[in-house]
Amino acid sequence: MKICWFNENRLGVVAGDQVCDVTTALNILPAVRYPAPFGDMLVAHLDAIRLEIERLQEFAVRYPIEDVSFLSPVANPSKIIGVPVNYPSHVQEAKDNLDVFKHYEGGVEDQGLFLKANSSLVGSGQGVRLRFPERQTHHEIELGVVIGKSANCVSEADALLYIAGYAIALDMTVRGKEDRSLRKSVDSYSVLGPWLTTADEIASPQTLDLCLSVNGTLRQQSNTRNMLMGIARQIAWASTFYTLLPGDIIMTGTCEGVGRVLEGDVMDASIDGLGSMSVKVLMS
Amino acid sequence: MKICWFNENRLGVVAGDQVCDVTTALNILPAVRYPAPFGDMLVAHLDAIRLEIERLQEFAVRYPIEDVSFLSPVANPSKIIGVPVNYPSHVQEAKDNLDVFKHYEGGVEDQGLFLKANSSLVGSGQGVRLRFPERQTHHEIELGVVIGKSANCVSEADALLYIAGYAIALDMTVRGKEDRSLRKSVDSYSVLGPWLTTADEIASPQTLDLCLSVNGTLRQQSNTRNMLMGIARQIAWASTFYTLLPGDIIMTGTCEGVGRVLEGDVMDASIDGLGSMSVKVLMS
Repeated sequence: MKICWFNENRLGVVAGDQVCDVTTALNILPAVRYPAPFGDMLVAHLDAIRLEIERLQEFAVRYPIEDVSFLSPVANPSKIIGVPVNYPSHVQEAKDNLDVFKHYEGGVEDQGLFLKANSSLVGSGQGVRLRFPERQTHHEIELGVVIGKSANCVSEADALLYIAGYAIALDMTVRGKEDRSLRKSVDSYSVLGPWLTTADEIASPQTLDLCLSVNGTLRQQSNTRNMLMGIARQIAWASTFYTLLPGDIIMTGTCEGVGRVLEGDVMDASIDGLGSMSVKVLMS
Repeated sequence: MKICWFNENRLGVVAGDQVCDVTTALNILPAVRYPAPFGDMLVAHLDAIRLEIERLQEFAVRYPIEDVSFLSPVANPSKIIGVPVNYPSHVQEAKDNLDVFKHYEGGVEDQGLFLKANSSLVGSGQGVRLRFPERQTHHEIELGVVIGKSANCVSEADALLYIAGYAIALDMTVRGKEDRSLRKSVDSYSVLGPWLTTADEIASPQTLDLCLSVNGTLRQQSNTRNMLMGIARQIAWASTFYTLLPGDIIMTGTCEGVGRVLEGDVMDASIDGLGSMSVKVLMS
């Protein structure tokens, strides 16, 4: 199932080239209380929501995909996690350009996972808004993994069972010397979209082609099989540090071809089975 | 006003050595809808909540402070921000022990602010639960600043107006080579407490004594006037990267005396005007 948020916080399911408005499926969620526990409530109740979406879909109002504006398919993550230096080809380009990329010593387990601010999260329809125009902002296309249930010290063998689904992720980055968790947390610098494809639709997340073009010119192209640390290991290892919660997003690392974007650029990103999205680059 | 969360998500106000249960003040908050915008709803409506607390306090059920267990006084932050290398005495001890402290090149603006996972946040009554017992976990006492309203590219001159209040923060840290945002995000490694002291009670946040003892032995002692980057500059500079939201927490940096804690230790922390808290060190 392909689940999305669109326009003014409408819940949708994608059917072919249409989006069905199934917002009333939210009525089955338990009453919201403040303060809420951390984690995304829809993702935490995904099985029940899916049943309700199936029930509502036939009679739902439909819109052509090209007429809706997609928000992030996860609305309330507790954390957004990034995996650095996870494709050998990107590691090499970084080492070849240390004046731009700075810290590139050691593998993923040496460098450690980083965090991106929740306030940086947008959907494909919202666009990336550049800050610091005098500095380089780079695109990084990544497979986005959305956690489905609480994961604390889980084994690598079980790790994929904790995944709710997948989406295309753009880990936008201001280059420079500061901590990654600052440079990658600018408002709008975490794009997730266009929708959440549930895990049952992706038999083999470690064999997906991914590519990104800017203004029609191919910049990044790889396959998730090239990851140095695979998805299962990422989840298992992350969960030794902190509890992963429903809706937590892991951006699983980028491949070679990382490059600068400028105001007016359009990034087109696609990943096997997850659709494609066109994201505008605007000024803040 | 000193506002707290205690026991099973009860809202309290501290009056002398008692906590008054004013949970029903939450009734004035607007209805909670999912998905919610990022940011803590109580902090976003703090002025109205304060009026309601004042109205309810006289007839509230009261408990002795020592009989309640304090949760984090901010329930739903969108992000927790840390300021590295912000007291010269701590920078020096780190430079003198690079085998333990690793990265200590440059000042705050070179190193950049880092993030801590929201899932790491606890109150003083919940204790710190050690992971990786073979590695060093260190205490870092810090002034915690809680943002009161949305702040995007605000000036240093105006920055203090965006503060809702203050609390004592413990930025617990596993030492090692990985990214700070991983090592400082272990479950329970962000302690905030014992309560939120509203900004009107702290005339001069840049002149507060702070100290931390472990098992009765003084470890850390300084004054917030020793910060290299002051609070106003932290807020203004952070807000050039990302929008600060109501309930966002800034841990403003630690002073010298950082050291290891072990299972069974008790950390006693206090800051002028913000009270004191005793935090147990447990095993995960």
